[in-house]
Amino acid sequence: MKRISQISMVALLLCFLPMLSVVSEAAMDHDKLLKDPGVYATFAVFKMGEHWWQMDHEARVKAASEMKKVFEKHADKLIVDTHLLRGLSERADVLVRIHSKEMVHNQNFLLDLMGTTMGMDMKNTDTFNGITKTLNYVPSFPEELKGELKTPPPQGSPYVIVVPIRKDAEWWISGQDTRTGLMKEHTDATVAYLKTVKRKLYHSSGLDDWDFITYFETSKLDDFNNLVTGLLKVKENRHNRRFGDPLLLGTIRPLDEILDILSR
Amino acid sequence: MKRISQISMVALLLCFLPMLSVVSEAAMDHDKLLKDPGVYATFAVFKMGEHWWQMDHEARVKAASEMKKVFEKHADKLIVDTHLLRGLSERADVLVRIHSKEMVHNQNFLLDLMGTTMGMDMKNTDTFNGITKTLNYVPSFPEELKGELKTPPPQGSPYVIVVPIRKDAEWWISGQDTRTGLMKEHTDATVAYLKTVKRKLYHSSGLDDWDFITYFETSKLDDFNNLVTGLLKVKENRHNRRFGDPLLLGTIRPLDEILDILSR
Amino acid sequence: MKRISQISMVALLLCFLPMLSVVSEAAMDHDKLLKDPGVYATFAVFKMGEHWWQMDHEARVKAASEMKKVFEKHADKLIVDTHLLRGLSERADVLVRIHSKEMVHNQNFLLDLMGTTMGMDMKNTDTFNGITKTLNYVPSFPEELKGELKTPPPQGSPYVIVVPIRKDAEWWISGQDTRTGLMKEHTDATVAYLKTVKRKLYHSSGLDDWDFITYFETSKLDDFNNLVTGLLKVKENRHNRRFGDPLLLGTIRPLDEILDILSR
Amino acid sequence: MKRISQISMVALLLCFLPMLSVVSEAAMDHDKLLKDPGVYATFAVFKMGEHWWQMDHEARVKAASEMKKVFEKHADKLIVDTHLLRGLSERADVLVRIHSKEMVHNQNFLLDLMGTTMGMDMKNTDTFNGITKTLNYVPSFPEELKGELKTPPPQGSPYVIVVPIRKDAEWWISGQDTRTGLMKEHTDATVAYLKTVKRKLYHSSGLDDWDFITYFETSKLDDFNNLVTGLLKVKENRHNRRFGDPLLLGTIRPLDEILDILSR
Amino acid sequence: MKRISQISMVALLLCFLPMLSVVSEAAMDHDKLLKDPGVYATFAVFKMGEHWWQMDHEARVKAASEMKKVFEKHADKLIVDTHLLRGLSERADVLVRIHSKEMVHNQNFLLDLMGTTMGMDMKNTDTFNGITKTLNYVPSFPEELKGELKTPPPQGSPYVIVVPIRKDAEWWISGQDTRTGLMKEHTDATVAYLKTVKRKLYHSSGLDDWDFITYFETSKLDDFNNLVTGLLKVKENRHNRRFGDPLLLGTIRPLDEILDILSR
Repeated sequence: MKRISQISMVALLLCFLPMLSVVSEAAMDHDKLLKDPGVYATFAVFKMGEHWWQMDHEARVKAASEMKKVFEKHADKLIVDTHLLRGLSERADVLVRIHSKEMVHNQNFLLDLMGTTMGMDMKNTDTFNGITKTLNYVPSFPEELKGELKTPPPQGSPYVIVVPIRKDAEWWISGQDTRTGLMKEHTDATVAYLKTVKRKLYHSSGLDDWDFITYFETSKLDDFNNLVTGLLKVKENRHNRRFGDPLLLGTIRPLDEILDILSR
Repeated sequence: MKRISQISMVALLLCFLPMLSVVSEAAMDHDKLLKDPGVYATFAVFKMGEHWWQMDHEARVKAASEMKKVFEKHADKLIVDTHLLRGLSERADVLVRIHSKEMVHNQNFLLDLMGTTMGMDMKNTDTFNGITKTLNYVPSFPEELKGELKTPPPQGSPYVIVVPIRKDAEWWISGQDTRTGLMKEHTDATVAYLKTVKRKLYHSSGLDDWDFITYFETSKLDDFNNLVTGLLKVKENRHNRRFGDPLLLGTIRPLDEILDILSR
Repeated sequence: MKRISQISMVALLLCFLPMLSVVSEAAMDHDKLLKDPGVYATFAVFKMGEHWWQMDHEARVKAASEMKKVFEKHADKLIVDTHLLRGLSERADVLVRIHSKEMVHNQNFLLDLMGTTMGMDMKNTDTFNGITKTLNYVPSFPEELKGELKTPPPQGSPYVIVVPIRKDAEWWISGQDTRTGLMKEHTDATVAYLKTVKRKLYHSSGLDDWDFITYFETSKLDDFNNLVTGLLKVKENRHNRRFGDPLLLGTIRPLDEILDILSR
Repeated sequence: MKRISQISMVALLLCFLPMLSVVSEAAMDHDKLLKDPGVYATFAVFKMGEHWWQMDHEARVKAASEMKKVFEKHADKLIVDTHLLRGLSERADVLVRIHSKEMVHNQNFLLDLMGTTMGMDMKNTDTFNGITKTLNYVPSFPEELKGELKTPPPQGSPYVIVVPIRKDAEWWISGQDTRTGLMKEHTDATVAYLKTVKRKLYHSSGLDDWDFITYFETSKLDDFNNLVTGLLKVKENRHNRRFGDPLLLGTIRPLDEILDILSR
Repeated sequence: MKRISQISMVALLLCFLPMLSVVSEAAMDHDKLLKDPGVYATFAVFKMGEHWWQMDHEARVKAASEMKKVFEKHADKLIVDTHLLRGLSERADVLVRIHSKEMVHNQNFLLDLMGTTMGMDMKNTDTFNGITKTLNYVPSFPEELKGELKTPPPQGSPYVIVVPIRKDAEWWISGQDTRTGLMKEHTDATVAYLKTVKRKLYHSSGLDDWDFITYFETSKLDDFNNLVTGLLKVKENRHNRRFGDPLLLGTIRPLDEILDILSR
């Protein structure tokens, strides 16, 4: 019964909270933080440890409730999206995506999160750090392609895919013009999927063992499979030293639902 | 005695359930889901944790029975095949193959499965996700080869092999005609084994760190060894960046038998 | 005292049991199974878990005795050789080599083995599967080399080495004649060691993440080091994508001695 | 309340201790050790184990206090900087950077550290060893570039990044002149960031599985991302067999604050 | 106080025991075993497990004393050197180097060692096996270089470095003359360090996943860093498929001191 009322409450909240994020609207311009350049993102990935599953139901519900307060405490400094990987990715149960104006805010939030009873039982299996930047190649693209790229992305998609990428040395050394040409071909392959796949790019060189973190939302995984297959077929793919590995597939779900699933 | 009666019951069930799947015939068109394009498959691989083996027999039997109900609960939304890897693959004990019309059904089933007492003691060592699609290269093959491919596959085979595959960038960039030529050579090498090896292909690009999940059933592992050796000898093999690793070998067994073996 | 009498009993048994195998002579043609093509072999490698070492001596002796019965129970269906890796290979303590006419016999034996009290405390760190086949390249070798290959191998050697091998794509694609030429050069390099190193080859493509499992017995590890160095110097070595990694070095010891060492 | 007073004390200490190091000024020339060639550095990286998080708060505070005394005990022989990785790097919680005149001093300090109650619960996930040397390529650079390199680095930066590097064989074999040319191009790319990113280089060949440990401090992670992207674009990047993996990102914090966070 | 007296006793022993080895002089020709060809060496590397650190001080002292007796028991068959890696290598705490005339002696010693209370709490993280052989390339070197190589190595050095090496296929296939030329260039680069770095070479092909285990002792780690940098600059380096990874750095310490440190 408790679980049903929690879910209802979440459903209610969702009408007011775009992107299922835990955020105080009053305290921060949510849209701005998700669209501006110069924003720091941390993707923290966790797997519940064995000890967690040996706790009884009541203790887990209490611990989940304690963790929820950490999200509220930091809501004026950052936006946090929560995703459930459990069942679809063997590496982890939960993916927390954090946006803020300073990386140390992300760390301080995670210190509090990992310092709760529940957090102490969570194994931090992956962490990706990135920064948002203004578009690098698009300004040099033909006008027609620029127009296509203004297609509004889908909203309220249930699936999330995160693909960290590391380019090879030749990519970086080949020069801006060469890269722009390759990226135009890459971008052409994405046009057919702009309506069904929402994308966001983070730059990671020097902040992590990756060059880019690519983040996708969609309700059509068949389209997403076609999109990625299309991207594999362009010459820029020769310069992906690593593409995923780990790729993370999950569903976008509100914090309450995720905590409920992990506390059952 | 209990075990014998369980196995008998399973033997009885097998007369009515093709492919040893746990499925409510009334609720879903089983054959259609296994043959249609656009079906989502999740291969979830588990190894029992140390805690499981320290539980006493009775507690394990009870936990196995609880898990069985999860299979029944979701039977109207998905088809689940169960395979025993224990003894033949060091990575895992059990492979569960799930088919449904939406990936989130697979996740919800696995959330329930992993949320049982037994599930909490299972380590999720690998998860492969894929989607079925219409044939890509076959329509361009010569009529004679198309005819050969209509050979009915074997039924009721005891062995299962799963080989996830990742192609290199040159494969994808080389173009449809080049790939069709290479795949014809590949397919020619399989003709001699169509009668003894059943095959099924899943597309994984963007859904996992693989491009394809290949699934095989056979009663003749010597034929299967010859088939794979034949496939290694065609030029398409140059483009397998990863072929297996992990390859999974196991036996197809009904859920009841697997639960019985793990509860002994 | 108990240990001494166990070892004496084993010494006695050894007069009648070639190859230190646990087998009922009446039930199965031991030599045939070790020499025929079409025989399935499973190399199961185990490391005792932490829990085992925390059990007291008496409980471990009892558990070892329970495990021994599993070997006896399956003796009519398979031949099992036991090897002690502990001390010489960091990956594992014990290597069990199983031969039978059907892979499922190997699995059923291992299910029983891993289902004992001792088995539940064993971590299955590696499993290699293979099949024996008739000689592939030897029929095309010169008569003189064929004659050399009839040298009787050494008997009763104390050391065992297992080297799993994966060839590269070029090896398989290069054609039978090219491979025969390379294998002749390879075989020439082994002639000097036929008297001191016994060899056996298993084919693994499609049954495991390897193409071959090579198995060696010797009493002269210096000769074996020279043999391998010789094999590294022939051109066929260019096509070993993996050679060992893990290579396993151990000693051939009867089951009773191994159980005794692990129960001390 | 206890925590606040600890932090205040640290704040007070910071006025006298440049670089947040725990060091007895009287006992050792701090600046000299951080600038001289021939100084041995050990980067020891730790993750708190599960057992730690199951201890109660009071026991953890006591254990942290015991650990602090180890830092004081060795303060006359070495300089230790402490960094908090927790939240920003999945591999570890804490990075300790040690400088001394003899590697065995570093080991003896770490033996004491790891021998405390807290240390016994810390998993040593990475250790990098290096030695400082006089500049290798700079003496051959043009005067103008030499002048630029005299730009004073930033002080009191909150972020730390450690990137271990392994060069390929061609780098080392290519000769001093070739390497000097490549390093001039590399150094040109760093000039724009000398004011916001502080750098320090350690040589590791033969002391660890790396050739160099590069250490950075900055308050502007966006600048650091641009700096690394610039370095990826020069030809010397072709010779980085490994660049990071693991790269470590964290914040520079005094020991007391780190111990406080881990004891909460 | 107890610790001080143990260390004094060790210091006394050191006057009579070259190389800090635990050996009965009467039973075996120590120098001969360390210099002869055809001697088998096992490098066994251990990390203390979590259970060890949870035992109380007294129990650990008792367990260490039990382990010491194993060294004495086998002293007539082998020479054992002990090294402390803890603090300088994240992989392990202790490295034990064993020399004997038969590999099975090394195994039997390690079986006893790992069978003690302390041994059961040690995780065997790496094991390297090798054999000593007569010099391969030196006989073909110029007389002057041969003369240089007679420089007496340093004695009583505190630091130990172990670098396992695997060569590529081209190295082995290139022929004895080519390899001799490359090894002369390699050896020339070592001459300057013969006085400060002591070296010993073991052949591992077929006994482990390496071709060579190189072992070094020095009191000057700066010289050792220069030596390795010099070796990276010769063309033979192109043929090192793996050089270290893991490289092990530690200090040479008598068994009693190591046991004392681990029992504190």
